[in-house]
Amino acid sequence: MRLRLRPADTSFYDLFARSAEHLVRGAELLAEMLSESSDKEAVAQRMRDAEHAADETTHEIVKKVNATFVTPFDREDIYALGSGLDDIMDMMDEAVDLILLYEVKTLPAEVSQQVEVIQRCAELTAEAMPRLRSMKSLEDYWIEINRLENAGDKNHRRMLATLFSGEYATIEVLKLKDVVESLEGAIDAFEKVANIVEQIAVKES
Amino acid sequence: MRLRLRPADTSFYDLFARSAEHLVRGAELLAEMLSESSDKEAVAQRMRDAEHAADETTHEIVKKVNATFVTPFDREDIYALGSGLDDIMDMMDEAVDLILLYEVKTLPAEVSQQVEVIQRCAELTAEAMPRLRSMKSLEDYWIEINRLENAGDKNHRRMLATLFSGEYATIEVLKLKDVVESLEGAIDAFEKVANIVEQIAVKES
Amino acid sequence: MRLRLRPADTSFYDLFARSAEHLVRGAELLAEMLSESSDKEAVAQRMRDAEHAADETTHEIVKKVNATFVTPFDREDIYALGSGLDDIMDMMDEAVDLILLYEVKTLPAEVSQQVEVIQRCAELTAEAMPRLRSMKSLEDYWIEINRLENAGDKNHRRMLATLFSGEYATIEVLKLKDVVESLEGAIDAFEKVANIVEQIAVKES
Repeated sequence: MRLRLRPADTSFYDLFARSAEHLVRGAELLAEMLSESSDKEAVAQRMRDAEHAADETTHEIVKKVNATFVTPFDREDIYALGSGLDDIMDMMDEAVDLILLYEVKTLPAEVSQQVEVIQRCAELTAEAMPRLRSMKSLEDYWIEINRLENAGDKNHRRMLATLFSGEYATIEVLKLKDVVESLEGAIDAFEKVANIVEQIAVKES
Repeated sequence: MRLRLRPADTSFYDLFARSAEHLVRGAELLAEMLSESSDKEAVAQRMRDAEHAADETTHEIVKKVNATFVTPFDREDIYALGSGLDDIMDMMDEAVDLILLYEVKTLPAEVSQQVEVIQRCAELTAEAMPRLRSMKSLEDYWIEINRLENAGDKNHRRMLATLFSGEYATIEVLKLKDVVESLEGAIDAFEKVANIVEQIAVKES
Repeated sequence: MRLRLRPADTSFYDLFARSAEHLVRGAELLAEMLSESSDKEAVAQRMRDAEHAADETTHEIVKKVNATFVTPFDREDIYALGSGLDDIMDMMDEAVDLILLYEVKTLPAEVSQQVEVIQRCAELTAEAMPRLRSMKSLEDYWIEINRLENAGDKNHRRMLATLFSGEYATIEVLKLKDVVESLEGAIDAFEKVANIVEQIAVKES
């Protein structure tokens, strides 16, 4: 462990933690969107609000980078992490939006598993962000996200095979494919954030 | 503003400005491609020429980075900006190429709005590039590009909903989806360039 | 050429070379998957094994970066190159997996050309990796990869036009489109690696 010569402005950690909290909220709304009994219009509106709140946090991070002389780690990495977290929210928002917009009624059963993966990734990410302060115990986080991404990927391909099995009308296949691809996109975006955290930890160690 | 200790080779700014001028040209050709009366073969050929000219400029940027000892900002950033501008051109070229290749006759009305967004992004980017020299007044540029990208995204999803409304034959849906996704890709690529400029400005300020 | 002040841990070069060897193997399996007479289950299993072996090498690279004090070039670049090589393998694995999963029987004739491009890219990449040591004669490699990517891109669009020509059932179009897009993704991933190598060479020269 090298000497810390830079007095870290600790509030960056708070902002990353807050950013990840938005993701936990977003993942909950995504799960709610799948329930048969949910008011889809209302859930989608709450998702839009959550996405705007996440945007605010991202802008605070960027503004803070611009205004801070000594940052706790490289400016580029702060920037990459902030926008990486934001990208996840965008993908979850896209999934919710497409379900509403396409008037999707029934989704393949495997979709719930995929949303569970997303919820787990969101929790792990929210738990990991405060640990950036000490740069300790982060390895478990990125290993587990990578494992979840692998599981999600397998599940994703199984869903595609289901969609193409002949059970669905072609136009329905197209709609559902867009939805499941946003879910896959969200999981990939979690992995990208985990990779950024890994790179930061490697540099700082 | 920190002291400029590095004598900047100013011709990089000229190359970025030229690169962005190709984008203005490309966006015009894209708009022309949509007009009912246009000779699609001829427009696509002019687009290919414009894309080759843009490639030349990108190669000049890369060659100049290799040959220059002191660059006006980080080599990696020059490289990222050069290839980011090139990616935009590739996406516009793809859109034009697919319209020709798929023999697309009619596009949803919202497509013109999307191409207007692209034209506006191209103008803003071309206006911003010369301002890299002073690193001043760039914030308006990246804020406006982000706003346009948001608007483009909403419009994109509306178009998808139109495509899936049952109005189009399924195979036509597939073709049109590819075309509108290239347009969306071009707008995303403009946003990526704006983000690179923001990062450069953050570092240099 | 600047003075080499850093004693390079040469085994990084061996790991990159090994990583690229996995790609040559993957490209062979991809070609085998296309042959009418192949046992698709068995080839896909061998592909999964090859992909796992490639993962191992990627993890070795990451572990080595973490454990090494003086790296032959920037840690971030080693990381980018390692994960870039890994991404190529993932795309080839996806193509093979989709052919099996979708029970694709016949692919458009142009697919073989695309796989030939992939095989050529894999060979060139494997030949280039050991040259990272001297940073010499790398330019030919990235120029040729860029040329192949351009050819692959043209071929890709021609395939899309074939798919949309009315010759195939719509659901079949969807399946084949996913397969050919993975191939295109593999070629793009080769180009990304070539770009990373170019950037490393620019920095180190």
